[in-house]
Amino acid sequence: LRADRRVTAATRDRVTAAAEQLGYVASEIGRSLSSRSTRRIALLLTDLGSPFYPCLVAPLYEAFEEAGYRMDLFSDQSDNPTVLRRLRRHSIDGVVLATPLLTSDFAQDLHAEGVPFVFVNRTSEDVPADCSVVDNTLGASLAGSALVRFGHHRIGAIFGPAETSTGRDRERGFRIALDAGGIALDEASVRRGPFTFETGYEFLGELVASMPPPTAVFCGSDAIGIGAINAARKLGVDVPGRLSLVGFDDIPMASWEVFQLTTVRQPIQRMAEAAARLLIERIEAGPVQLPPRRIVFEPEFVSRGTLAPPPDAAPIP
Amino acid sequence: LRADRRVTAATRDRVTAAAEQLGYVASEIGRSLSSRSTRRIALLLTDLGSPFYPCLVAPLYEAFEEAGYRMDLFSDQSDNPTVLRRLRRHSIDGVVLATPLLTSDFAQDLHAEGVPFVFVNRTSEDVPADCSVVDNTLGASLAGSALVRFGHHRIGAIFGPAETSTGRDRERGFRIALDAGGIALDEASVRRGPFTFETGYEFLGELVASMPPPTAVFCGSDAIGIGAINAARKLGVDVPGRLSLVGFDDIPMASWEVFQLTTVRQPIQRMAEAAARLLIERIEAGPVQLPPRRIVFEPEFVSRGTLAPPPDAAPIP
Repeated sequence: LRADRRVTAATRDRVTAAAEQLGYVASEIGRSLSSRSTRRIALLLTDLGSPFYPCLVAPLYEAFEEAGYRMDLFSDQSDNPTVLRRLRRHSIDGVVLATPLLTSDFAQDLHAEGVPFVFVNRTSEDVPADCSVVDNTLGASLAGSALVRFGHHRIGAIFGPAETSTGRDRERGFRIALDAGGIALDEASVRRGPFTFETGYEFLGELVASMPPPTAVFCGSDAIGIGAINAARKLGVDVPGRLSLVGFDDIPMASWEVFQLTTVRQPIQRMAEAAARLLIERIEAGPVQLPPRRIVFEPEFVSRGTLAPPPDAAPIP
Repeated sequence: LRADRRVTAATRDRVTAAAEQLGYVASEIGRSLSSRSTRRIALLLTDLGSPFYPCLVAPLYEAFEEAGYRMDLFSDQSDNPTVLRRLRRHSIDGVVLATPLLTSDFAQDLHAEGVPFVFVNRTSEDVPADCSVVDNTLGASLAGSALVRFGHHRIGAIFGPAETSTGRDRERGFRIALDAGGIALDEASVRRGPFTFETGYEFLGELVASMPPPTAVFCGSDAIGIGAINAARKLGVDVPGRLSLVGFDDIPMASWEVFQLTTVRQPIQRMAEAAARLLIERIEAGPVQLPPRRIVFEPEFVSRGTLAPPPDAAPIP
């Protein structure tokens, strides 16, 4: 009845039919007491309002559903110490961490408690654990190389938080590419903030007000980039005529006509599916310790409408 | 330990402190067996990817959290007959229905089973139940009246689904206002579809290709309106110079510079809070039957940048 894959389809159908006929409803509570398994997964997310996370939640939910697991959403801060207590109380089988901080010891706690878990999109530091991520360093380096290739010299950046693996790795990759291209990142034109619309919206105003303003700004996520586009619109700054912008993620919104945001794509759906598979394998392996597994997807540079040569560029001969 | 509000703060603190000292973790499973209460609420949502629902999920989650309830998200189709079985199995205390169809008998089933539930945003037909909604008919009539007031005569609409209460009521309100203003709705310029970006994007193309094209289009939701703006951008149709657009909802995105969507605001946060309160009251009243309660919020017309007089309008003398 719980869609165990070790049971053949024919047997499952017979049991289901018999249960239907008898009006039998499996009690999750009874089942939990007998098997100590709840077939429940907890997804921890700190930002329900972000346009990025729905892209991750839907395929995660489906992948778990298909394997007979229910995914519950916890929206607390992952640093909140009450979450672990609550996770224990709800007796979940495993945890997906999508928004941990590098410095959080929550993953350490899960590890110490023996709770199976997986990182997706972001990771914490120093925890040997399963994870499914894109190569953020490489992805941001593609964005940096593109700005160099288009001839930009006055380059700024609105990075994500330094205390997240995605924020840190994207900043590192971007800086590496600029270095390699012999272009300095103007430190007066560097900002950091949460991966939100508001971050891009507020900081872009500061950057274009500096003298001389940057001709290109790398944004640590598409949400930041879309905030930046909106700020540019408000300030009458032509994108990409006067200012080029590049994001990171390739959420669906990035391809909308009003944005046409040049960005770096991470394969969000495949990342989610891989994370679900890693976690389920770990749960079903039982007390046997699997080694930590790390799946790293390749990023892809996506050229759209927000990257052009700088306004002061000499025409290409 | 379960934050019962009938326990004084002082007693609660003493119990919590003692439990901390003993390392006691309340087992939800044990508690469920003793009290038959799980302190769990199920939220049923069919569209996790929509930009509207996160605005509803976050305040719902917080309101339940504050009252000591955990909200779990179910993303199935509400018509799916397995959902009720699963809801029973997880032994939840109550259900929030945010995306029911008018024709769905799921709410009837919950009612028959004695499961406490509340409608928020949308309702089903013929079920005497608690609900927290905006006056959708009135709201859409404000949009219709504004189009008439600005002098539009060739008016189209991209409504939501007729099988949803929001789709039906907004269409009705819009038609009533046009009738009252003596303006016909051009039936060749009427479309209906899901409350999504794609609906607006695809149908706007059809409407502006008709001869003569409408000078104003009402969109049944902001997501539809934002899809329409993007389609207009792709087709080179100036908004609002050649085409006026009005949405419904006032999600945060509607106020972004690139959209500046004129729309009808529903107070989403207050609707969510009221829905949580209605459901908690019903759960805590126990077997006592409360009468069905209906909370209807007032809509507000929000004037932004996508509504102007039609291009063929005589200058105002």
